[in-house]
Amino acid sequence: MQILDVVLTPVAFADPPLLNVMGVHEPFALRSVVQVKCEDGVVGLGESYGDEAFLGEVRKVLPRLRGHDVFDLPGLQRLVAEALSDTVLTDAHGLIGGFSIRKTIGSVYSLFEVACLDAQGHYLGRPVTDLLGGRARDAVEFSAYLFYKYGKHADGREDSWGEITTPETLVGSAKRMAGEYGFKSIKLKGGVFEPAQEIDGIRALAEAFPGHPLRIDPNGAWTVETGIRVARELDGVLEYLEDPTPGIDGMAQVAAEASMPLATNMCVVNFGDVEPGFRARAIGVLLSDHHFWGGLRATQALSVTCESFGVGLSMHSNSHLGISLAAMVQVAAATPHLTYACDTHWPWKVEDVIEPGVLEFREGAVAVPATPGLGITLDEDALARLHENYVRCGLKKRDDVTYMRNFVPGFEPNTARW
Amino acid sequence: MQILDVVLTPVAFADPPLLNVMGVHEPFALRSVVQVKCEDGVVGLGESYGDEAFLGEVRKVLPRLRGHDVFDLPGLQRLVAEALSDTVLTDAHGLIGGFSIRKTIGSVYSLFEVACLDAQGHYLGRPVTDLLGGRARDAVEFSAYLFYKYGKHADGREDSWGEITTPETLVGSAKRMAGEYGFKSIKLKGGVFEPAQEIDGIRALAEAFPGHPLRIDPNGAWTVETGIRVARELDGVLEYLEDPTPGIDGMAQVAAEASMPLATNMCVVNFGDVEPGFRARAIGVLLSDHHFWGGLRATQALSVTCESFGVGLSMHSNSHLGISLAAMVQVAAATPHLTYACDTHWPWKVEDVIEPGVLEFREGAVAVPATPGLGITLDEDALARLHENYVRCGLKKRDDVTYMRNFVPGFEPNTARW
Repeated sequence: MQILDVVLTPVAFADPPLLNVMGVHEPFALRSVVQVKCEDGVVGLGESYGDEAFLGEVRKVLPRLRGHDVFDLPGLQRLVAEALSDTVLTDAHGLIGGFSIRKTIGSVYSLFEVACLDAQGHYLGRPVTDLLGGRARDAVEFSAYLFYKYGKHADGREDSWGEITTPETLVGSAKRMAGEYGFKSIKLKGGVFEPAQEIDGIRALAEAFPGHPLRIDPNGAWTVETGIRVARELDGVLEYLEDPTPGIDGMAQVAAEASMPLATNMCVVNFGDVEPGFRARAIGVLLSDHHFWGGLRATQALSVTCESFGVGLSMHSNSHLGISLAAMVQVAAATPHLTYACDTHWPWKVEDVIEPGVLEFREGAVAVPATPGLGITLDEDALARLHENYVRCGLKKRDDVTYMRNFVPGFEPNTARW
Repeated sequence: MQILDVVLTPVAFADPPLLNVMGVHEPFALRSVVQVKCEDGVVGLGESYGDEAFLGEVRKVLPRLRGHDVFDLPGLQRLVAEALSDTVLTDAHGLIGGFSIRKTIGSVYSLFEVACLDAQGHYLGRPVTDLLGGRARDAVEFSAYLFYKYGKHADGREDSWGEITTPETLVGSAKRMAGEYGFKSIKLKGGVFEPAQEIDGIRALAEAFPGHPLRIDPNGAWTVETGIRVARELDGVLEYLEDPTPGIDGMAQVAAEASMPLATNMCVVNFGDVEPGFRARAIGVLLSDHHFWGGLRATQALSVTCESFGVGLSMHSNSHLGISLAAMVQVAAATPHLTYACDTHWPWKVEDVIEPGVLEFREGAVAVPATPGLGITLDEDALARLHENYVRCGLKKRDDVTYMRNFVPGFEPNTARW
């Protein structure tokens, strides 16, 4: 089934001032939405990053897609690789590890692979899970994703969550999030305050949510020594410790001393990192992300590698809309070796580009759609609104560091700071 | 799409007296053919081992398949695992490494997975390659598979190949095989004679076929010391050396000294062997086999693990018929990381269960069918004939060792003999 046309739409959605190691989320998060329009009126949807550098790479591919068969994914891979030649894409936010030509190609390919699989599913009348080997579970479990945050943006815009910086407000946000969505696992984005304060936050969560699996992700804010110390202090409290320190070597040093597994979406971020990361026994949990691992099929293959090496699998999340959530749900449903509840930023957004009602969080999980393709429908009006956001907000890249300086003059990223 | 009925047919086809480390091939090779009959008249085909122990395990699964959805492969996996409970299947021939419950389940599951994928393809009107991520190549390259052999079976039955035991007759068989099918890579099944004789055979092939990639597979007939010595003597002559010695430890010792990569279908034979095998750097090439690695999708996932660890991928072959060849061609076509021509016993058989004309070897390769499913059609008359063979021949398992004693009284397997 040939591609007739591809429409790329950059969008932006309102994002709260969430804190992390690099600073604070800007007022809008950027995404790209792709509509792959095929013969017989079939349309496949994809979603990924929306920063200008990524869009530039995606635009190099667009002219080559017309006439391509949506079933020819190896050909799509070649086509993307040829279009991008030797560009290595980096991000401005620095939260998803090292960059390489392979990761760049994987990122751009993934946007189109998802759309082609959606189109295949619509053409064949089958859900994407069926194209990925069938449904291994009927619902996909997600974790609550807690952030420290400011009460308002630099322009004074507020949100319903208010300021979250203390153990009390943190527990309050967890109660609201778990109450509204039923999440069981709870993850705290750390790397914002010095470790003792974040340890207090985790302890307060452990007390308020006995039996709930807890995680903290300081995005490499700590030295090896601090990572080992925090691991000891939170022995028996965490289900896993995510990216305590940067790099495979550092992670391996912490892992050797930590009682809980270490997780990463920063030190093993493409297939070239798998051998060094696994040989070093740097991690016990890999946080996959189809957006930069090269798509849904690559994510499934990765899960088998992890299983062979006794490494657990969960899923990383960037701020995202419903098309990405649908893709995450489909691949998670079709991946037997998925051993932890996945991450999602979902509750932090209030806008979307898809028609509501399909992807609902109930008891912390999203039921897997059984309808064709990704199982979702694009809301054209909402897409236009979020594109209008994109044009008006004027943001072209994510830059949490610079934005943070509105709140903390002279701020520098906290990487390996403590 | 529900399964209505499953028909299991054991078959046997005439096999020449081919020599290997365990003895010599019996007059008939056993296989199983499965027809998975579904709604709407769709039928999916599968093929695997035909020995009584394997058939016994398969028969445990049969009663559970009625009503199962052919798209539910994770459910099929569970269903097979439940049916087999704790049986560990072993083979009598000892040529495909260690056994485990995982390998047993993988073997039985594979038979049905292939049939379900064939049924899916027929139902959707797409080739199996499309269900495996799309076609990465239009033709799949195979290697000539040379054997030392006797001129006639114990009952006096002859074949057109005659006796092959000397460098001259070996080169003659290679010329015939390469001439008829266009194979470029050439593999010699070794482990039959003492290493010096087999080295002479390889050298004669290298002289007669300059530039053709050569391999030898003694099936673990050698000690570590002999493996290292042969690797040195054939430095620059072999593209890879297959299973010179038994076990991951022994292979790793040879690999550390050998200039060419070592290949295996004996020391890394299921996902549980991957971590120890790769950590030990025991192999440079993995010879996958969907029949015991758990099917076509598992084979693809394995290829990604291999790629991540810089391990090449090729494909092992047992004596097989056209359904298995079709499955091998489909998965090979949809697997980008396939780095060597695959093995096949194809030219050694003169009978089949599928209608001829689809799977033809031209210039050493088989063009990938573009028609739905596996792209082949069962020949019901041929199936009946080969089942009649099965009944008449009386064989219930493969036992090259005992049969060899007709030729060499008191013969014992050559494993690690030299």
